Amino acid sequence: MELDLGEIRKNIDAIDDQLLELFKQRMGLTRKVAEYKAAHNMVVFQSEREKAIIRSVRDRSPEELKSSAEFLFTNIMDISKCGQNNAITPAVSIPHGTQIKHTPDVAVQGIEGAYGHAAAQKLFPDGRMNFRASFAEVFEAVENGSADYGVIPVENSTAGEVSVNMELLEKHHVFVNRTVTVPCTHVLAAKHGVKEQDIRILFGHEQAIRQCSEYASSRPELTIIPYANNAMAAQMVAENRSSELGCICSRECAEMHGLDIVNPAIAADPNNATRFFCISKETEVYDGADTIAVSVSLPHISGSLYRMLTKFAVNELDLTKIQSKPLPLEFRTEEDEFMFYLEFSGNVGQPVVLRLLNNFQTEYSYFRFHGNFLAVN
Amino acid sequence: MELDLGEIRKNIDAIDDQLLELFKQRMGLTRKVAEYKAAHNMVVFQSEREKAIIRSVRDRSPEELKSSAEFLFTNIMDISKCGQNNAITPAVSIPHGTQIKHTPDVAVQGIEGAYGHAAAQKLFPDGRMNFRASFAEVFEAVENGSADYGVIPVENSTAGEVSVNMELLEKHHVFVNRTVTVPCTHVLAAKHGVKEQDIRILFGHEQAIRQCSEYASSRPELTIIPYANNAMAAQMVAENRSSELGCICSRECAEMHGLDIVNPAIAADPNNATRFFCISKETEVYDGADTIAVSVSLPHISGSLYRMLTKFAVNELDLTKIQSKPLPLEFRTEEDEFMFYLEFSGNVGQPVVLRLLNNFQTEYSYFRFHGNFLAVN
Repeated sequence: MELDLGEIRKNIDAIDDQLLELFKQRMGLTRKVAEYKAAHNMVVFQSEREKAIIRSVRDRSPEELKSSAEFLFTNIMDISKCGQNNAITPAVSIPHGTQIKHTPDVAVQGIEGAYGHAAAQKLFPDGRMNFRASFAEVFEAVENGSADYGVIPVENSTAGEVSVNMELLEKHHVFVNRTVTVPCTHVLAAKHGVKEQDIRILFGHEQAIRQCSEYASSRPELTIIPYANNAMAAQMVAENRSSELGCICSRECAEMHGLDIVNPAIAADPNNATRFFCISKETEVYDGADTIAVSVSLPHISGSLYRMLTKFAVNELDLTKIQSKPLPLEFRTEEDEFMFYLEFSGNVGQPVVLRLLNNFQTEYSYFRFHGNFLAVN
Repeated sequence: MELDLGEIRKNIDAIDDQLLELFKQRMGLTRKVAEYKAAHNMVVFQSEREKAIIRSVRDRSPEELKSSAEFLFTNIMDISKCGQNNAITPAVSIPHGTQIKHTPDVAVQGIEGAYGHAAAQKLFPDGRMNFRASFAEVFEAVENGSADYGVIPVENSTAGEVSVNMELLEKHHVFVNRTVTVPCTHVLAAKHGVKEQDIRILFGHEQAIRQCSEYASSRPELTIIPYANNAMAAQMVAENRSSELGCICSRECAEMHGLDIVNPAIAADPNNATRFFCISKETEVYDGADTIAVSVSLPHISGSLYRMLTKFAVNELDLTKIQSKPLPLEFRTEEDEFMFYLEFSGNVGQPVVLRLLNNFQTEYSYFRFHGNFLAVN
């Protein structure tokens, strides 16, 4: 006789009761294992025993359940290990509650009026701005102490990640302490008196040009020339006699260089914004810091990624960003070719966070703690 | 009396035996649920029942096990659902085994000698090259049928993702059918007879400049000017009379424009390479295609990402790339703000892959199948 849905579910519920009971018992026993290991100075992770359990589970499962059963038990063991870690790993402490330095020296790429300048002013209203030619020089200035802080764009809502700065973050010994998001309201600017239809050559940073690509394709007669940055393009247009030149820049930047705004709405996305990192040489964690950034390498992407994420899930820490990337050259080995850049919610004042960071440091061959930061409005 | 490690483990093994037995029974029952639902035209996923089970599991667990137990049961239910899906979801078929068109029209950004040109030649030795000013125009040419294929850089081993093209891929109705990786051996080139130390102004694409940043910082007297692309910079240097100009480009590009190679090793990474996508208007799946690319949106990142990855883990499909990104503007809602771009191993000839794709399409509000491709050497 065929069971109806209600009856099948009653049977499932009965099985779930037993599963939960066994799970609780198992967690109690693995806690004992952890205590035993701690008392006898043994490491938590023992891959041989784990492999043997998985082998046996596969052997005892029918073909169509082998991978599901392996997956379930891998999971159960990973949950157990999180419990064991929490029980015995000492929480490393990271200093926090730092004060922002008074009138700090702030390194920014570009020139006055660049979006980076606007971001730095938002972060440091009383900062002494220190303009550098390249992003690498901003990182170097912070690292060698010639600036107290650096302000670096990392992500644009339209154009995506600023890869160069994410790479520089892996290479330099600096930490992220705050982030700020600056709206990028691109305008079309030109010398006083120039009309929109007179403009024949348009300058702007590559990303800005991309964000205004719809406007550009509506005016096929325009020659478009990528420039190192918008503020430099504005300066050049302001200093040039030709009335055929225009540039893409911010409203503030146009005003700063005495240019007219000939078209205030040329960007596809009116909510276009860029996120900046504020970097310092030492870890600085301010009150309210709620996001942590790390990078780790994982040898085999599929299984190991899943198992790494188990640690976040069990500890109820929310991942807010994940990017797989090639590992920086100098750390690449035959086994480790990839890394993951991760951001997650948390504060280094939470023991669960410190234990996770500690566990990452022990378990993965490449591990970088990039900082614990808060978003400034 | 304290138990020793061997005894604790014996107890764990006994529990594992029972867990495995119950898991098998549970999978048998959920299969019956799936069959029942299929027979009565009911959907597989019923979130109310799932929520009730989770609530009850949390209620019956001690404080320190609540999140672990919730996590375990979420997992068990996700594994069950994969099984249910496999049992009842019809596999959608995607045409495959396409032949490459003879002497196709191939759209490439840039000019002769650009890396994109080299990539296109590798993919289509007998193709008619069709140079376009921008990447957007390459996508448009493929979409409106004025080119059979387009060749697009998506990732550089040093400089990272080419974000603009990953965005264009979301916006245009095109599919990826093959990939090719081209080594980018940057050289320093100048007009015939110019010596390295004579060069005062160096041109190159922003990414190329970045890849040669160590060389640049060793020669602080150089003025470096970002150019729209390397091949255009080479053309400009070749046509200019000044002997103070140099450019960063490939060996082939230098030769093509009659320039001397004044320094053959200026890039930081000798293995520097760029990966290109070959795009077409319709899905084309060639013999040996082993990688699938998709984008999906997930409402709440942490839990939902983990649960999405469960589908890959249970089905033993290897993720090879994962990038979280903001969802394209036109698809953004209050709930859905993020998306994930994923690549994984598989072929649309495998039922397990088709079922996964089908499941993604049903479950996530934003889903894009970008193609099933193979890497060409």
